[in-house]
Amino acid sequence: MQIYIHTLLAPPLRNRLLEGLGNGHTILFREPEDSSETAREKFTGSQWVLGNPPSEWLNADSETLEFWQLDSAGFDKFSTVNVQAKVANMGDWFARPCAETIVGGLIAFFRGVDTLTVLKQQKTWVGHALRPQLRLLDGQKVVILGSGTIGKAIKEMLTGFRCEILTLARSSPEAELHTKEELLAQLPTVDILISTLPGTADRFVDQQVIDAMKPGSVYANVGRGNTTDEAALIDALQRGHLSGAVLDVTELEPLPEDHVLWTMPNVVLTQHTGGGQADEDSGKVAVFVRNCQALMEGKSIENQIDLTKGY
Amino acid sequence: MQIYIHTLLAPPLRNRLLEGLGNGHTILFREPEDSSETAREKFTGSQWVLGNPPSEWLNADSETLEFWQLDSAGFDKFSTVNVQAKVANMGDWFARPCAETIVGGLIAFFRGVDTLTVLKQQKTWVGHALRPQLRLLDGQKVVILGSGTIGKAIKEMLTGFRCEILTLARSSPEAELHTKEELLAQLPTVDILISTLPGTADRFVDQQVIDAMKPGSVYANVGRGNTTDEAALIDALQRGHLSGAVLDVTELEPLPEDHVLWTMPNVVLTQHTGGGQADEDSGKVAVFVRNCQALMEGKSIENQIDLTKGY
Repeated sequence: MQIYIHTLLAPPLRNRLLEGLGNGHTILFREPEDSSETAREKFTGSQWVLGNPPSEWLNADSETLEFWQLDSAGFDKFSTVNVQAKVANMGDWFARPCAETIVGGLIAFFRGVDTLTVLKQQKTWVGHALRPQLRLLDGQKVVILGSGTIGKAIKEMLTGFRCEILTLARSSPEAELHTKEELLAQLPTVDILISTLPGTADRFVDQQVIDAMKPGSVYANVGRGNTTDEAALIDALQRGHLSGAVLDVTELEPLPEDHVLWTMPNVVLTQHTGGGQADEDSGKVAVFVRNCQALMEGKSIENQIDLTKGY
Repeated sequence: MQIYIHTLLAPPLRNRLLEGLGNGHTILFREPEDSSETAREKFTGSQWVLGNPPSEWLNADSETLEFWQLDSAGFDKFSTVNVQAKVANMGDWFARPCAETIVGGLIAFFRGVDTLTVLKQQKTWVGHALRPQLRLLDGQKVVILGSGTIGKAIKEMLTGFRCEILTLARSSPEAELHTKEELLAQLPTVDILISTLPGTADRFVDQQVIDAMKPGSVYANVGRGNTTDEAALIDALQRGHLSGAVLDVTELEPLPEDHVLWTMPNVVLTQHTGGGQADEDSGKVAVFVRNCQALMEGKSIENQIDLTKGY
């Protein structure tokens, strides 16, 4: 089997992958110094692939491709890809880190940890005078957009903070809300709105949703930047309609140096690090190796997806 | 009844207090501009007092004092006070805010929210390169020192992060650990040690405890600064034995400008703001009014304490 590893892996993980796949394969790793042409040559003719190569390679050179393991959870940027191969994503590997980052950003904002971090940089003790500005997650009413693995993990975490939690998902029977109309009816009493929506939910959080939000409430986004009308969000923050935002994702990434979000004091930016963890790549290798072993043993793979169905 | 309000209250809360206590009382509020002598004159001769006046007033001029409502949870600084009056503290009013701050500081540290806040100040996008540095609360083994209301709230919150949690308390039957020896035996496998101990537990977290902690583990303190050998803690952080600390309390408060803690990158400082919330003073008024009404009706007060028993 010719196997192409598009994900850049450190030597210990390459060894773990080689051990997991066993002998008899030609395994081609992309190197950091590879030109696009060099990498594409390694991709072309491979049967199994790990990672997210450019869509055009997949559309033009996937005749031999049998199995494609994405190294992400989201796959909306591959909606135009048409391959015959089996395709899998990373499933819930990123769910706990993403949920911890967005909940962590929210508590940091409510408890002033961001403000206190800036004060530490300035070696300035404010102490007691800060206390009246601090808020509590305790008892807040929260709506989570999306009932995937990230939304479920967020709900589990916020339960310990005694939040009142509603989930919106079009078709999930576990969700309390199923339509934008039901969401709009709730928003005037919601303290925190958290989006975990995929890129296919383009501008779901639009001007109408933001306008309907309770004055002083908080928005958080750990889905995709394009799911939110960012100009409307920034305007709502600037005029004080919303009291804050925690954004793991933005419309533009990296955020340009002159972007207004950098200078807004009521915004926590986590720079799309939500899925990160020390052994992030090891999880990618583990999922890929398990799926390759399943294929070798004629078993079904985990996290198989249908690219035409968005997230 | 002559009632002295040592706690500085804003006009709306003074009104709420006046309404709650009803007519027939002489209520003397301390004013921000009052000299110590002026305030002490208001205190002397009062029967009921709200707030934490100096110990010497209480020891010298408490002949008429019948009921003293502290506006704090901790009262170890009054261990030398000897009064005949009924004494009450703020009970669990500060528990949820304190627990949210220390858990929020921990998640911020684990998910890099502190680092990302500094990067936002610098308008610098690092993004993906940060991800391998990020850690998860998920599945961490945690020991909470103290099973009071703060410790219980922390446990409830961390359960949603799937932490394995042990509590140490000398006499609580709910606690898994009861002695320092049992703690020392656990520490080599503990990822996060959180102290909620009162000031009476002077230096409980000493060199021996810190040395026994697992290499790379994290310490958090939302109790009192004197419960921890801070020099030993700083040394352990500097030589990398511990990977980080989240400190709501320190030995010196305010922290002097030249203190080394300001410049340590692996330390989150929350400047003893843990108990803070927007309606902090309203809670103090509410507890005091409820207890005054109980006294007027001959009922027992809430949160009554014995000063000789420390926290």
